Amino acid sequence: MERHDFASDNVAGATPEVLEALRRFGGGFAASYGEDEVCARAGDLIRALLDVDAEVRFVASGTAANALCLAALAQPHEAFLAHGHSHVASDETGAPAFFGGGMGVIALAGASGRIDPAALGRALRAPDHPHVQAPAALSLTNSTEYGAVYSAAALGALIAPARAVGLKIHIDGARLANAAAAGFDPKALGRLGADAVVVGGTKAGSTPTEAIVLIDPTLGRRLGARLKHAGQLVSKSRFLAAPWIGMLEDGAWVRRAAHANAMAQRLAARCPFRVVHPVEANGVFLEMDKGAYARLRDAGWFAWRVLDGSIRLMCSWATTIEAVDGLTEALNGAFRAS
Amino acid sequence: MERHDFASDNVAGATPEVLEALRRFGGGFAASYGEDEVCARAGDLIRALLDVDAEVRFVASGTAANALCLAALAQPHEAFLAHGHSHVASDETGAPAFFGGGMGVIALAGASGRIDPAALGRALRAPDHPHVQAPAALSLTNSTEYGAVYSAAALGALIAPARAVGLKIHIDGARLANAAAAGFDPKALGRLGADAVVVGGTKAGSTPTEAIVLIDPTLGRRLGARLKHAGQLVSKSRFLAAPWIGMLEDGAWVRRAAHANAMAQRLAARCPFRVVHPVEANGVFLEMDKGAYARLRDAGWFAWRVLDGSIRLMCSWATTIEAVDGLTEALNGAFRAS
Amino acid sequence: MERHDFASDNVAGATPEVLEALRRFGGGFAASYGEDEVCARAGDLIRALLDVDAEVRFVASGTAANALCLAALAQPHEAFLAHGHSHVASDETGAPAFFGGGMGVIALAGASGRIDPAALGRALRAPDHPHVQAPAALSLTNSTEYGAVYSAAALGALIAPARAVGLKIHIDGARLANAAAAGFDPKALGRLGADAVVVGGTKAGSTPTEAIVLIDPTLGRRLGARLKHAGQLVSKSRFLAAPWIGMLEDGAWVRRAAHANAMAQRLAARCPFRVVHPVEANGVFLEMDKGAYARLRDAGWFAWRVLDGSIRLMCSWATTIEAVDGLTEALNGAFRAS
Amino acid sequence: MERHDFASDNVAGATPEVLEALRRFGGGFAASYGEDEVCARAGDLIRALLDVDAEVRFVASGTAANALCLAALAQPHEAFLAHGHSHVASDETGAPAFFGGGMGVIALAGASGRIDPAALGRALRAPDHPHVQAPAALSLTNSTEYGAVYSAAALGALIAPARAVGLKIHIDGARLANAAAAGFDPKALGRLGADAVVVGGTKAGSTPTEAIVLIDPTLGRRLGARLKHAGQLVSKSRFLAAPWIGMLEDGAWVRRAAHANAMAQRLAARCPFRVVHPVEANGVFLEMDKGAYARLRDAGWFAWRVLDGSIRLMCSWATTIEAVDGLTEALNGAFRAS
Repeated sequence: MERHDFASDNVAGATPEVLEALRRFGGGFAASYGEDEVCARAGDLIRALLDVDAEVRFVASGTAANALCLAALAQPHEAFLAHGHSHVASDETGAPAFFGGGMGVIALAGASGRIDPAALGRALRAPDHPHVQAPAALSLTNSTEYGAVYSAAALGALIAPARAVGLKIHIDGARLANAAAAGFDPKALGRLGADAVVVGGTKAGSTPTEAIVLIDPTLGRRLGARLKHAGQLVSKSRFLAAPWIGMLEDGAWVRRAAHANAMAQRLAARCPFRVVHPVEANGVFLEMDKGAYARLRDAGWFAWRVLDGSIRLMCSWATTIEAVDGLTEALNGAFRAS
Repeated sequence: MERHDFASDNVAGATPEVLEALRRFGGGFAASYGEDEVCARAGDLIRALLDVDAEVRFVASGTAANALCLAALAQPHEAFLAHGHSHVASDETGAPAFFGGGMGVIALAGASGRIDPAALGRALRAPDHPHVQAPAALSLTNSTEYGAVYSAAALGALIAPARAVGLKIHIDGARLANAAAAGFDPKALGRLGADAVVVGGTKAGSTPTEAIVLIDPTLGRRLGARLKHAGQLVSKSRFLAAPWIGMLEDGAWVRRAAHANAMAQRLAARCPFRVVHPVEANGVFLEMDKGAYARLRDAGWFAWRVLDGSIRLMCSWATTIEAVDGLTEALNGAFRAS
Repeated sequence: MERHDFASDNVAGATPEVLEALRRFGGGFAASYGEDEVCARAGDLIRALLDVDAEVRFVASGTAANALCLAALAQPHEAFLAHGHSHVASDETGAPAFFGGGMGVIALAGASGRIDPAALGRALRAPDHPHVQAPAALSLTNSTEYGAVYSAAALGALIAPARAVGLKIHIDGARLANAAAAGFDPKALGRLGADAVVVGGTKAGSTPTEAIVLIDPTLGRRLGARLKHAGQLVSKSRFLAAPWIGMLEDGAWVRRAAHANAMAQRLAARCPFRVVHPVEANGVFLEMDKGAYARLRDAGWFAWRVLDGSIRLMCSWATTIEAVDGLTEALNGAFRAS
Repeated sequence: MERHDFASDNVAGATPEVLEALRRFGGGFAASYGEDEVCARAGDLIRALLDVDAEVRFVASGTAANALCLAALAQPHEAFLAHGHSHVASDETGAPAFFGGGMGVIALAGASGRIDPAALGRALRAPDHPHVQAPAALSLTNSTEYGAVYSAAALGALIAPARAVGLKIHIDGARLANAAAAGFDPKALGRLGADAVVVGGTKAGSTPTEAIVLIDPTLGRRLGARLKHAGQLVSKSRFLAAPWIGMLEDGAWVRRAAHANAMAQRLAARCPFRVVHPVEANGVFLEMDKGAYARLRDAGWFAWRVLDGSIRLMCSWATTIEAVDGLTEALNGAFRAS
């Protein structure tokens, strides 16, 4: 029986404050499909978090949240730009193409999941002709799939040239809490020109919920219909909204992420393998040969080998010091044996 | 401030057993994307409920559950048959067409949401040529959108001729619990030849969750990918599965629905307006003129005028005798005033 | 062996001027994908015909032309309004839904294929909520599927209220030549506010070609990519453009349609069955019982029974007086025998 | 004014035998939508060409033909394998994803457009899990985009392992005539296990027409509806079928391609630039620096720089010895100047 503690940050359960919010707002009657006061209150908290005037909706899947946003930002015969190892480009089973009617993706390179500005520049200057899906949007992820965190300046250096040529901006914030805990101010997103932001709840310790934040006001037209058409308008929507009140009212969203980030730091510090990406958020990526990886799995620890060949270990709000130390002990064992 | 008690059965919160299950299974670490033991256990309970060997998955939206099933049963250039006032035909904002790549719907008539066998027969004999989307599936809803319940015999009389000409069978069981509480045996579905069943959790008293049950074994191939591609593979899937354990382990699923049905009976019995559909499940549909409807709304009660022109009042697990009596008092007031 | 002379106006071949244009422009080398001078010249002729400044492209299928336009005018979670018996609503096998990502259609009533202004008014006033696909476009067909011709005033009476609430306007002009031959001025379309017009070439006597005319300038962005993505960018596009030069340079487009209309008049005048729609273009629709219809078919004449139950007889540029008289003789025989 | 003679093989017009066939079959009345005798006769010729029992349909766009086939062979949540520089992977503006509901493509490497068997093997052994679109089909192009021709043995070495794990096989035969002229026997395709073949007419000297050949009998169900739904059922279909009679009845299809291939040989032989791919069909690919390319364009010759960085020169049935010699003279000029 394998332990999944570090397999992902979605293997953790829900934090007490989330479960409490579900109980708090789960009684009585409320309008459905997002028209209720719980959704309104959670929406206000999200708007305050990002300091934006925006439409806010809640869905159960981050893949769906991203795909729905991207489909709103580009036409089916266009494409979005994204890091080649980003979730939207490599880990969503074609959902953006499905939601976007065959919309394309143009993969960009860059270290540790951050897009290389030069690669972006080349893509923005590429010829725009009828035989390719030209870019209409840029998707950025903070913190990245490799545990790095964009500074506001670094994000702005990507957003500005994209906006200058008319692209719309999507932010995948599945781990925005971890970026925030690392010092990134979520309020920078709107200021820098993001049009659609997905704020992650699930990986931050919630039951399934992601917030879709549509800053570009033209995207809000018939938004309920857009969601329902796409299978993303949940009837008892307050149960997707309530966790946000639990997470945001007293700062748990960032506080829990800070714990996850700290656990990643501890893990990296005690780990005998080479850490291949900067540990700025809640993930640790290790260079590990087949034998060592096999021994780690044999020792009962589940972990993914990800696209760049490294072994990914994710920490979450629920990661304990004991688990980190148990894992690093196993890692040291795997190392010694190799 | 309007009261939503009877606006729908999705305005109620979650039952105590559902919230307790969320707490019970919300701790510790678990594999994600449906690979966990909570999903396995809930799947077993669903399979036992229907007495089928089937793939079971959980999604947050009934619209998505139906659309995903229908898209698996018919090709984009084909159609499904459904009652013209069914949820899949009239209340899902084109989601089946979206999930199904432009798949069509052929609307059939019939009293109280039940498809007229003669209408089905005509549709099955209609010419099949390249200029129309010919039917490849039949969608049936039990209990129906107008609060009627199909008997197993009545369902079989629709399923048999459809299967005889090669159609696949979809069951929208958003209110299957109410049908079960009214005497319909869910085990009949597989026996009669259903290929894909959606078992409703949300309207039965859960936080958002619907069970997709794929009985036709060919539909199970790469099912996880099918769900993720469609934005329907929730990472912390145990939170969609846990409520089913709470609802099914001790029979609460049917017991709560029986309460809802009983409240509808009480409401119908005390109501001064003509009840236009048989009250066999948890809905009451009233003939009410504009003035009376306005007075009812003025008295603070929210209710929808639905497609057939009647005013719909839905009861749920949370409907109280006091609320029923309060509403019927208001209705009598509205009646007297007219 | 049945005769197809009156089965449709697409059973005729190509006119001599079309074949000559194919030969004239079929030699030598030319840029492909619509960048050639033949396309430019044909586009100029189409712009002159409609007196509009517009993007003009040529595709081989009228169904595709309509679907592509409608998909550009409405979002997937929206719908277009059309007559319930129009080609786009009833005879295109779901192509608009496919091209439009599950876009819906709202069927309107009206005599002889013309939309009833009152029905349009009701649709424009219908509640716009998340559970339905609300209208974003209005599709109008001139001449209609039942051989009637809208006057500019009648079209304007439908276009104006639709535009007033923000809808975009699509014109299916598969038989615009027949309308023009009946006195309708194609230049009225742009003036009245059409956003996208399909001008029919095939039924006017061409080899397969339909002109897509995008008047709304926002629709022209990345149009080549939009066409190619949808499988509608033909490489040797000059062969779709050349016929238009043959048809429009010397007025054959209207002249051939006038012949077709005259043949319909002759047919209606000599026909012993009740003609159920005004014969204003090139179609004649007859009330005919099963026996008479069978005898007509037995006499070797193929004809469709269409949606309103009438038997449709279509004339084309190639319809001869002899064929009309042969058919009316057969019809008189069918009549006498009944 | 640039000369397009070598820009593509779709810049040529139609051969005399194609224009003659259009005239021959363009008169009189005929059933539409593929039900006519011209389509039947052309279908027989295609079936004989490939020695298969198959459904044959004609469409105007090769992109559409490929996309429609691929969408029939893989589900939306699956992918097809193709060479990364193949037309379906890199030059169709996302059409396969559009027709396939977001279906994915997995790009494989290999010299001169031929897929490397080892790369295919790795793709076939890749993990199949819910987070990626796993392959369901293999697409192969003969002759390839880089002018190489697969032998039957080389094709078989790719098809066999793919079929062994259940993949369906698509052949893009846009330039199958050129492959046939180079010695490849089209009859090998069915024997090797192809499920869907697109036989190219346009580049072989026709007006727009491509033949879709569905060998897998399960794909033929409701094929007319599948085509119409996708905007690919042309009404006057005989005009897409007639050219095939002109091309295939007396062997012009291969004979014209042999001429194109010979012109490519002549061009390559007289060309002062390095030829970077084997000249086995009708394309010549040159290593040419920016300056030389600019001088070539300045001399009035249009040519594309393609994905691998080479300059592509395509010959067709209409390429003359004089043009080849004129171009090589210009090339020698460009070379001398550099």
